[in-house]
Amino acid sequence: MKDFMKEAIKEAKKSLILGEIPVGAVIVKDNIIIAKAHNLRETLQDPLAHAEILAIKEASQYSNNWRLKDCSMYVTLEPCPMCAGAILQSRISKLYIGTFDPTTGACGSVINVLQNNSLNRWTNINWNYNKQCSSILEEFFKKRR
Amino acid sequence: MKDFMKEAIKEAKKSLILGEIPVGAVIVKDNIIIAKAHNLRETLQDPLAHAEILAIKEASQYSNNWRLKDCSMYVTLEPCPMCAGAILQSRISKLYIGTFDPTTGACGSVINVLQNNSLNRWTNINWNYNKQCSSILEEFFKKRR
Repeated sequence: MKDFMKEAIKEAKKSLILGEIPVGAVIVKDNIIIAKAHNLRETLQDPLAHAEILAIKEASQYSNNWRLKDCSMYVTLEPCPMCAGAILQSRISKLYIGTFDPTTGACGSVINVLQNNSLNRWTNINWNYNKQCSSILEEFFKKRR
Repeated sequence: MKDFMKEAIKEAKKSLILGEIPVGAVIVKDNIIIAKAHNLRETLQDPLAHAEILAIKEASQYSNNWRLKDCSMYVTLEPCPMCAGAILQSRISKLYIGTFDPTTGACGSVINVLQNNSLNRWTNINWNYNKQCSSILEEFFKKRR
């Protein structure tokens, strides 16, 4: 199986070059990448322009369907509440996460939007730790200090 | 003060005409509406096209700034986790909600994304009940059955 997390890391590196917090995401269906994106919040001056949101937008345009059933997302950083909520909304079946976010992680670290029996949807979470996912973030924040 | 919830209800009615779940939102700064939107998920085949998300996108484009500080949002239905997360991300200061959502409401009904001490942001929530906000939804779901 192709290492899709590596493709998400390539996306995160594009954010790094732009001075953005480096996060990348890809969406896969039938073993093919149908969308890839990286964080562009500062570049676009858009609070919604997280990697996951941009990838979901691209995948639904590609599919011409708001339901991304049987799709998986690979993302380098644990999604925030907005992105976890968008993953629920889009019906993505499986989420692979490269590293956790102790500050705003909404897939178990701070809250869990994806696996909450009180909400009416549930998404499969797979922790797919990759050292590069955290080291690229450390590199970014070290430079900023 | 202008009744901004009435403007949000006007937006929700546009969704109803399109056969969409009727939800409308407006964003206000300095007592002026800088963005208004209604749910367009089916029309655009976009899982992100909730009224709140479209309004935030419009307001940040208008402001050319991803931070919507000192802005208020008036929305006819309690935001879902995605939209509540987007409100946090955009730094909207105050949220006025027209009716609660017992199924996916993320501002207190099911979970509370906006007022959670474990997350690093907090948004002011004002329940601004208006019978029309719930009756328009009842009308929609009655027709669908």
